[in-house]
Amino acid sequence: MKQVFLQLLQLSFYFAEKLAADTSNIIATRAEPAVFAALKDLFPQAEYHALARMVVIKRERVSKPKGLVAVLTAGTADLPVAEEAALTAEIMGNRVERIYDVGVAGLHRLLHYHQQLEKARVLIVVAGMEGALASVVGGLVSKPIIAVPTSIGYGANFLGLAPLLTMLNSCAPGVSVVNIDNGYGAGCCASLINQLD
Amino acid sequence: MKQVFLQLLQLSFYFAEKLAADTSNIIATRAEPAVFAALKDLFPQAEYHALARMVVIKRERVSKPKGLVAVLTAGTADLPVAEEAALTAEIMGNRVERIYDVGVAGLHRLLHYHQQLEKARVLIVVAGMEGALASVVGGLVSKPIIAVPTSIGYGANFLGLAPLLTMLNSCAPGVSVVNIDNGYGAGCCASLINQLD
Amino acid sequence: MKQVFLQLLQLSFYFAEKLAADTSNIIATRAEPAVFAALKDLFPQAEYHALARMVVIKRERVSKPKGLVAVLTAGTADLPVAEEAALTAEIMGNRVERIYDVGVAGLHRLLHYHQQLEKARVLIVVAGMEGALASVVGGLVSKPIIAVPTSIGYGANFLGLAPLLTMLNSCAPGVSVVNIDNGYGAGCCASLINQLD
Amino acid sequence: MKQVFLQLLQLSFYFAEKLAADTSNIIATRAEPAVFAALKDLFPQAEYHALARMVVIKRERVSKPKGLVAVLTAGTADLPVAEEAALTAEIMGNRVERIYDVGVAGLHRLLHYHQQLEKARVLIVVAGMEGALASVVGGLVSKPIIAVPTSIGYGANFLGLAPLLTMLNSCAPGVSVVNIDNGYGAGCCASLINQLD
Amino acid sequence: MKQVFLQLLQLSFYFAEKLAADTSNIIATRAEPAVFAALKDLFPQAEYHALARMVVIKRERVSKPKGLVAVLTAGTADLPVAEEAALTAEIMGNRVERIYDVGVAGLHRLLHYHQQLEKARVLIVVAGMEGALASVVGGLVSKPIIAVPTSIGYGANFLGLAPLLTMLNSCAPGVSVVNIDNGYGAGCCASLINQLD
Amino acid sequence: MKQVFLQLLQLSFYFAEKLAADTSNIIATRAEPAVFAALKDLFPQAEYHALARMVVIKRERVSKPKGLVAVLTAGTADLPVAEEAALTAEIMGNRVERIYDVGVAGLHRLLHYHQQLEKARVLIVVAGMEGALASVVGGLVSKPIIAVPTSIGYGANFLGLAPLLTMLNSCAPGVSVVNIDNGYGAGCCASLINQLD
Amino acid sequence: MKQVFLQLLQLSFYFAEKLAADTSNIIATRAEPAVFAALKDLFPQAEYHALARMVVIKRERVSKPKGLVAVLTAGTADLPVAEEAALTAEIMGNRVERIYDVGVAGLHRLLHYHQQLEKARVLIVVAGMEGALASVVGGLVSKPIIAVPTSIGYGANFLGLAPLLTMLNSCAPGVSVVNIDNGYGAGCCASLINQLD
Amino acid sequence: MKQVFLQLLQLSFYFAEKLAADTSNIIATRAEPAVFAALKDLFPQAEYHALARMVVIKRERVSKPKGLVAVLTAGTADLPVAEEAALTAEIMGNRVERIYDVGVAGLHRLLHYHQQLEKARVLIVVAGMEGALASVVGGLVSKPIIAVPTSIGYGANFLGLAPLLTMLNSCAPGVSVVNIDNGYGAGCCASLINQLD
Repeated sequence: MKQVFLQLLQLSFYFAEKLAADTSNIIATRAEPAVFAALKDLFPQAEYHALARMVVIKRERVSKPKGLVAVLTAGTADLPVAEEAALTAEIMGNRVERIYDVGVAGLHRLLHYHQQLEKARVLIVVAGMEGALASVVGGLVSKPIIAVPTSIGYGANFLGLAPLLTMLNSCAPGVSVVNIDNGYGAGCCASLINQLD
Repeated sequence: MKQVFLQLLQLSFYFAEKLAADTSNIIATRAEPAVFAALKDLFPQAEYHALARMVVIKRERVSKPKGLVAVLTAGTADLPVAEEAALTAEIMGNRVERIYDVGVAGLHRLLHYHQQLEKARVLIVVAGMEGALASVVGGLVSKPIIAVPTSIGYGANFLGLAPLLTMLNSCAPGVSVVNIDNGYGAGCCASLINQLD
Repeated sequence: MKQVFLQLLQLSFYFAEKLAADTSNIIATRAEPAVFAALKDLFPQAEYHALARMVVIKRERVSKPKGLVAVLTAGTADLPVAEEAALTAEIMGNRVERIYDVGVAGLHRLLHYHQQLEKARVLIVVAGMEGALASVVGGLVSKPIIAVPTSIGYGANFLGLAPLLTMLNSCAPGVSVVNIDNGYGAGCCASLINQLD
Repeated sequence: MKQVFLQLLQLSFYFAEKLAADTSNIIATRAEPAVFAALKDLFPQAEYHALARMVVIKRERVSKPKGLVAVLTAGTADLPVAEEAALTAEIMGNRVERIYDVGVAGLHRLLHYHQQLEKARVLIVVAGMEGALASVVGGLVSKPIIAVPTSIGYGANFLGLAPLLTMLNSCAPGVSVVNIDNGYGAGCCASLINQLD
Repeated sequence: MKQVFLQLLQLSFYFAEKLAADTSNIIATRAEPAVFAALKDLFPQAEYHALARMVVIKRERVSKPKGLVAVLTAGTADLPVAEEAALTAEIMGNRVERIYDVGVAGLHRLLHYHQQLEKARVLIVVAGMEGALASVVGGLVSKPIIAVPTSIGYGANFLGLAPLLTMLNSCAPGVSVVNIDNGYGAGCCASLINQLD
Repeated sequence: MKQVFLQLLQLSFYFAEKLAADTSNIIATRAEPAVFAALKDLFPQAEYHALARMVVIKRERVSKPKGLVAVLTAGTADLPVAEEAALTAEIMGNRVERIYDVGVAGLHRLLHYHQQLEKARVLIVVAGMEGALASVVGGLVSKPIIAVPTSIGYGANFLGLAPLLTMLNSCAPGVSVVNIDNGYGAGCCASLINQLD
Repeated sequence: MKQVFLQLLQLSFYFAEKLAADTSNIIATRAEPAVFAALKDLFPQAEYHALARMVVIKRERVSKPKGLVAVLTAGTADLPVAEEAALTAEIMGNRVERIYDVGVAGLHRLLHYHQQLEKARVLIVVAGMEGALASVVGGLVSKPIIAVPTSIGYGANFLGLAPLLTMLNSCAPGVSVVNIDNGYGAGCCASLINQLD
Repeated sequence: MKQVFLQLLQLSFYFAEKLAADTSNIIATRAEPAVFAALKDLFPQAEYHALARMVVIKRERVSKPKGLVAVLTAGTADLPVAEEAALTAEIMGNRVERIYDVGVAGLHRLLHYHQQLEKARVLIVVAGMEGALASVVGGLVSKPIIAVPTSIGYGANFLGLAPLLTMLNSCAPGVSVVNIDNGYGAGCCASLINQLD
């Protein structure tokens, strides 16, 4: 199995041709509807995931599901990035469990999911505002955690800088971090970890 | 009752004279032992609190204790700032309860103190690293919380910038923030709140 | 009395349903008219406060007014944030006095209100530009002050960073700070303080 | 097997007592010789690793080695952080291969190790200056990569900010990042990943 | 030969008149179609390069081509800036070879062009994201390299700050840097170097 | 009259010779005692002002005093910078009035000096912490104000960045700003203004 | 003579009424045409200066012209800010000489104006990009200089931060700085200086 | 001819051995006297340049001098970095002309050297404070210019950030920039350019 993932920022014909010559699966992230329309013409099997702003073009079967990837969000506003992560992990052949809206300001909601967290092989924690969720989850479970800061917030959030710094300074061991809003990268990291034999 | 609090950054004789003419209590923060020695000569009743780096000169009785001020820290390295806050609140006439080393990476330790947190009238939360403790406490109790970021950390902590941003972006209502390492300011805020009739 | 406050950044149907199942008061902040329209369909009693960009849905009576919360602004451009703070405090059951446009460049206007400031139990100071008002008010009255920097300004204001730093470095004791433009948070803090027995 | 890892920033007697009561392994990072001397008195089996500035106290056997953790550095100045990562992984029960001084300015040196990189289950890439090594390694192997920026550099390096941003923006999938100079955190992450069944 | 290059940010009539009085070649960078339309009226020979957003007005012959300027990009999204650099160098009388889409995540693609890189007299390396390409190229060839960071990226890219810092900290000798997205400046530098006798 | 002012950062013999050949007055700022000692050997009339860390070498008479320059400070810790400004203005031939320790947290102290402020032709306002004094003075008097932020403070003061931004964003007209701790520059500006006919 | 200057960021009816009650001159800066239209209804004598985006309402005669204020710009793109400064100075009763487009990259153009610079009593230097003009002018003339950084530039200009820092660090004595794009503030400062007896 | 240049940050024996096995020239930059002492033992021909803090070990003849490299500084405090650049260029086989202390605040001094600047094939401009010299030189001569910001300055200089931004935003074509204080890198760039056939 071989896959091509691309982070489409500009769609040129040259590029489309190269894609067509390949037979692997394709993910186009941050894709506006117009990008989907253009890809749909070339690849009729293309699907659009509006919330995640992703186009997924499945052209080959991926390996059967392995361990579980859990994707958590602090709030509902973090869903687009979380879906980008979850869909990326899924198309790479992982089973994904979504545990959304479990931010630390309502701690008991998160504690309620404690057992489900333990079942995951790797966790993706998506959070904006102050991004404290990654540290709390890291204190609850001894699993690899990929933290994704989001640009949700305002003022001294500085477009995601606040949760980015929070996550980089996490006092919980086992937390590593990807770029702000980089659901795609988190999905890749989690998949590579989950698919280790 | 009238009190003079000073944030001594430079100790001049002129200043000392002014202090001597007054009869209120004095706090000197960030005071190295040499500052203490100089003050001790002028005010024999001066006491030195080494961990908090504070000199306290009690010259008048303060009002009898009112509600409780709780001071929490995430780690043991946050103790000097926490002690500055606690001692400031105490000399201003408040009862203070210290709940130290309850950072979010070991959540159950914090939850263990839940009932005691409910007994406080106002809470001071002191945390460095990623500073997530303020949000978690803010989610547990419906009380005014004064958050104090500390400069404990390294790298992308940027001398306390990380917990400062975390606390300013807290998703928990009721959290307001003072300057990095400003235990004195937090003690003043908590005291003003606690002493409201 | 129980209240649900939400900082609506995305309005989903799932979310609306959850709100409908509850019977507490609701505040939706940073709500564009379209958000109001959507909420109005679900909650006919919803009211829109255009200046504060807030939707308020009153569904239960809040406790009778206690002490006074004073809300001050430096300029007229700070009014939207100040109104968000004032309305938040009001729906949480506080009496609010608005003292607007008393910036430090016209000091005598502020001094004129000195007696009224003394009557408040807690003060919210809203200021953009250089944000010096919080320090001056903190020097005039010995009350808890919640300072709210606003993003009013340009150039080296850096979208509110300048007044944020000013307020965090305030030389007046008793000043604590919330996020830039966070009128809602300031209202919550002031209410929690004002409602202490 | 249970282990206690601590990031010793202040060593108090209270703390030492708590440690003594436990029987798990201990790592003290950023430990100056004086810290080692103090710990040596309490734990005669304590060992000091001068380059990594770590004290290691082995009190229990860890599970037998599993897959391989590769630790790479761009330059020789990155060695202290790399050794902190490598020793942390080793005491947690991992086999570690060190591949040092393979920065991108001498690309052929890195390419020479290509086969060895493929044998690792997870890679830790430690780099200061511009931190480009993580991206290049991420392009060569399809394995989870933990990138550790170091504070090696000067001027517009801004104490490690430059390689931190480089690594967060890596165009290679599979790269996640820990705090500047955080060898300990990278070792923990790699160990958690490597020990997945 | 004398040339006038201008970085048109505002097009006034006064300015156009001054241009008309001159007989040298003109480059207008960052020119929207409306700017082209306005210039086309005054200079019928004006040409528009849409990808580079440049207007080129050739009014005199430039010296015959000298050594080769190679222009490389890491990704396809960097093409507009690369084309601005390449066109600037061409109108100043240089032969330009374009080697696009050779980012470090696919190292073998870059190595494939190694011999062509050696033929250039000076290289312009255009890269966004983490900007690692400049260091890798600097390690491959012993030629002057003008590095151009682009604002391609998101989150902790900070509009080009990340590749700017990467390039300034390059561990490869021979790399100097121009402003973010400054293809024009890179073209000027490369031309001045290439035209040295 | 001609004067040479120098901001001595390195004292070389070559430099000293040049100075000796001249007959104008000399100011050496940020001069440690060792610098004074070296200059004293060459210029026996050199005087050392320890608080301002300045060496003053008077070798010619300056014009008789003109209008008054007022130098204000917010706190006592700002005195070294204020003295640098005051001494610079004095050696350039200005009468200087010092009004120290009139920060905004004790507003009545400042208001007490209102009449004296009105007598000055130009004012220098020196303040660290949050630097609010410049705005308040600018609101009281209609005179040119040179604001000097100082690096007095800690945490989110960022070595003087906070008062620098405060002063640049001052809502009071007539305030212009020099570099952090640049008493010398403020003294020059004030002198140039005061000596206008 | 009394004047009211306002920096209109929001135009409310309340505000307009207050203005109407007054009889002094009014300047509205950063005024879009819609603001002008609204003011024109209330004040028929209102004039709009499109380049400076200013509304000027003259209702009283200002004192007869005194010394000369020179306003310089580095480029043509700096004209809007320069015109805001020049118009502000003019309505406050100053004679203004405009010397535009004399940036340091074409030094001889600036030197050509040397004599005219000497005739001014105070100079306003407006520059974006790297803002070097203030230092060069400060080296040429011994007059008070108000430097205004503009947000003209891109990339590492950071919306005017680059010229702001340049001007604050100017090695020429006599240069003080106002906020980015603050032509109004520069005009006020220059007028206060120029009108000193 | 082959040369090894190293930027010694840590001197290990392993490293020294590798050096000994080679026969090319060696430069050790930022070398404290202790580093020199250690190298002198191994390489008796090692020379120490105290001002530039460099150790130079000549072991082979470099090609005979080609065109001229001019090294300029704005002030005397920039000399250490300038000497690092000049010595680097010299050991790589270039003739170097030093033109020091020609900052823009004394423009006529720089203009005095205009003809000599024209004789150089490539120029290195070293400047701290506001770093305006690069733009002015770039406006005077049509040659490749390598700009080196230095960390000379204080306050809003931010350890060289100010001149770095100035140079990156230079309005003069032909200016490219290396890292703050990176005299070594500037010397390499200039040498590569100067040695082009």
